[in-house]
Amino acid sequence: MRRVAIFTGMAAGLICLTGVCGWMWAEKANYVKSEGTVVIDHLAVPLSNLLSPEARAYMVHLLVDKPFDGGPSAAQNIQGYRARQDEIMRWFLGPIESRYPVKIEERTIGGVFTQIVTPKYGIAVKNRDRVLLNVHGGGFVSGARTASLIESIPIASIEKIKVISIDYRMGPESKFPAASEDVAAVYREVLKDYSPQHIGLYGCSAGGMLTGMSIAWFEKHNLPNPAAIGILCASLGRMFAGDAAQVAGPLMGIQAPPAPHPGVAAPPIELPAYLGNAEPNDPLVYPINSPGLLAKFPPTLFITSTRGFEFSSAVVSCNALNHAGVVAELHVWDGLPHAFWYNSDLPESREAYDAIARFFDRYLHR
Amino acid sequence: MRRVAIFTGMAAGLICLTGVCGWMWAEKANYVKSEGTVVIDHLAVPLSNLLSPEARAYMVHLLVDKPFDGGPSAAQNIQGYRARQDEIMRWFLGPIESRYPVKIEERTIGGVFTQIVTPKYGIAVKNRDRVLLNVHGGGFVSGARTASLIESIPIASIEKIKVISIDYRMGPESKFPAASEDVAAVYREVLKDYSPQHIGLYGCSAGGMLTGMSIAWFEKHNLPNPAAIGILCASLGRMFAGDAAQVAGPLMGIQAPPAPHPGVAAPPIELPAYLGNAEPNDPLVYPINSPGLLAKFPPTLFITSTRGFEFSSAVVSCNALNHAGVVAELHVWDGLPHAFWYNSDLPESREAYDAIARFFDRYLHR
Repeated sequence: MRRVAIFTGMAAGLICLTGVCGWMWAEKANYVKSEGTVVIDHLAVPLSNLLSPEARAYMVHLLVDKPFDGGPSAAQNIQGYRARQDEIMRWFLGPIESRYPVKIEERTIGGVFTQIVTPKYGIAVKNRDRVLLNVHGGGFVSGARTASLIESIPIASIEKIKVISIDYRMGPESKFPAASEDVAAVYREVLKDYSPQHIGLYGCSAGGMLTGMSIAWFEKHNLPNPAAIGILCASLGRMFAGDAAQVAGPLMGIQAPPAPHPGVAAPPIELPAYLGNAEPNDPLVYPINSPGLLAKFPPTLFITSTRGFEFSSAVVSCNALNHAGVVAELHVWDGLPHAFWYNSDLPESREAYDAIARFFDRYLHR
Repeated sequence: MRRVAIFTGMAAGLICLTGVCGWMWAEKANYVKSEGTVVIDHLAVPLSNLLSPEARAYMVHLLVDKPFDGGPSAAQNIQGYRARQDEIMRWFLGPIESRYPVKIEERTIGGVFTQIVTPKYGIAVKNRDRVLLNVHGGGFVSGARTASLIESIPIASIEKIKVISIDYRMGPESKFPAASEDVAAVYREVLKDYSPQHIGLYGCSAGGMLTGMSIAWFEKHNLPNPAAIGILCASLGRMFAGDAAQVAGPLMGIQAPPAPHPGVAAPPIELPAYLGNAEPNDPLVYPINSPGLLAKFPPTLFITSTRGFEFSSAVVSCNALNHAGVVAELHVWDGLPHAFWYNSDLPESREAYDAIARFFDRYLHR
C-alpha cells in the first residue's frame, strides 16, 4: 500500500510540474490500508447544508477568522490562559444576559463558592421544590464564574427553575478528585433542602465529564442519585475516541492529531493538568469502565454535535447506558463544533436549551 | 486560495521526485476556503477504536475486500441488479435465520403480498394484541422478500411479537406514491384486527423513509396514527445532506460525491427510479417540509451510524420532531456504515435490535 501511495504521489508530482495538479488531486482516489485505515485526500467539505443561517455565519467566523486562537497555553501561563478563556466566555455571555433575564446570587455552600441563578420573573410553581446543579466546562482548568453562567442562565430562565453553579476546584492547583469532592459537598447541603428526586445535575465539556464522575462519586460515598443528569458535549469515557477524534478537528480546520495505531488505546489520561494523577481504569474518572456502575445511573441526557471531538464517545456512552437498562436520551446537531450551545445566537443552541429544559422537566419528580 | 493550493502542490510534486512525498503530504496542513469549506488532505482515519472486535473485522472486510461491489446498476439491468442485491441480502440472512428462530407465513393482505414473521416459540402474552409492520430497505428498487426478513426476523424473535413485512411496489416499474398506497392498503386491513395503539411501523433505509412517508400519507387519508414508528438508517428529509453526505463516503473508502455549492440545495430528488415523478417540496415525500405534519407524528425512533450517508439527515430529523413536541429517540453507533444492523454478527447490531424492541415495547399501548 505504501508503494502504491508513493507511485500515486509521483504521478501527482509529475503532473504538478505541468501546472494542473489541482485537477489531478481532485481526481486522485482515496485509499484504504490493509488494517482498515482510510486515507482521505483533497476532500472539500462545505458547511453543512442543514445549518441555520445564523449557524452558517458563526461557522464561517470560527473557521476563517479563528476568533478564539491566541493567548498563552494553560501549561505556559495558567492565569493568562484563564484570562483569555474568560474573555471568550464573556463574548458568549453578553447576548445570553440580554436574552435571558435572571438574578444571580453568590453563596458559599458546603465550603464551596456557588452562583445561584434564578429567573428574574420568578420560579414556576411546578419548580418550587426542584433545583438544578451545574458544573461548568473549561477543561478542568478554566471557566469558573463565566462558563458557569453561560450554562446556567438560559436553562434557569427558560425552565423557570433555580440553578446552582458550582465553582469546583480545578487544575493545575488541585488534582482529581478535588472537583468530585466539591460537587459532593454542595450536593450534601442541597439535600438538606431538596429531595434527591427533585434535583438535577448537568454540565458541558469537562463539566459534562464531571457530571458522570459525580454520579460515580455519589455511589461510592452512599449519596443518593439525583433524579436526572445532563452530560453535554462530553461522555462517560475518554472524550477523544472513535471517528470524531480523527475527523472533528479537520472539519474545524484544525490539523488532526496523530492517528493512534489501530487497536491501541488512546494516551493513558486526558486533561493532565487536573487528571494527571488519576488511574485511567478508575470508574470514578471514566464511569464507562464499570457496567455495574452504569446500571445505577439516573436518566441521562446527552447533547453533542458532529464536529465536536467528543461526539463518538458521547454516542457510545449513551448506548452503554441504554444497554445497562438506563433511560438515556441523545440529541445531536449537525455540522457544529464542541460546545456550540454556548452561542445563544444560534437557533440550534436554543433547540438545545429546550431539550435540556424538557428533559429535566420530564425526569425530575413533581 | 487556488494559487496557494497550486503552489503547495508544486512543492509536494518537486519533493515527490526525491521519493519522500509521503512525509511531505502528511505535513501539509488542511485549509479553509473563505465561504467555510474545509479542504482535508492526507487524513488517515483508522477504524474507530470504539468498535467491537466483530465490527472491526466486518469493517476491514467491507473496506479492503469490498464484498458488495460488482453486478450491473439498477439503471442498466434491474433484474440483474435485484439478483445481486438479493445475493448480498442472503449473506446477511443466513446467520439471522440461525440465530433467531421464527415461522414465516406468506399472505396477501389488502391485495399486497406480505410475509408474516412470528417467533417460533410463541408470541409473548403482552404482545397478543400487538403487531409491527415492516417496510424493507433497498432504495425503492430492491430488497423485497430478502431485506424484509433481515429487518423482521430479529425483532419478531427478540420482542416475541408478530411482524408483517410489506412487499410494496417499487421502481422503476412503479412510481411514487405506489409504495405509500400499498402500505396504507395493508394498514387498513390490519386495523380491522388491531387497535392503532397496538400497531408499530418501521423500516430501514428506503423503508425508513417510507415509514415517515406513510405517516404523511395516513394523515392525508384520515387513517389513524400507529402507536410508534422506527425510522432506521433514514430520515424525514433528503437523506444525502449535511456533513455525512460529504464525509461518510470517504470514510467508507468511497470517493466523495461532488460537493454541492454552499447554500444551494441538493439535487431536486433522490432515488429517481421510484421518486422521479415526485415533487421535492411535497411533505408526502419529505415530511420534514411540513412542521404542522411533524407535530402530528407518533413517537419516533431513529437509528443511525456515523459512517452512514444518512446520518446528518437523521439527527436533524430527530431534532425537528423534538422541536415539534413529538417524542423522538435517537441511537447512534460510531464508525459503522449505512444499515450496519443487517449484520447480526455485530454486538452493535444486537444493541440496535434491543433498542428497537424496547422502543416498541415502551410506546405500543398494553
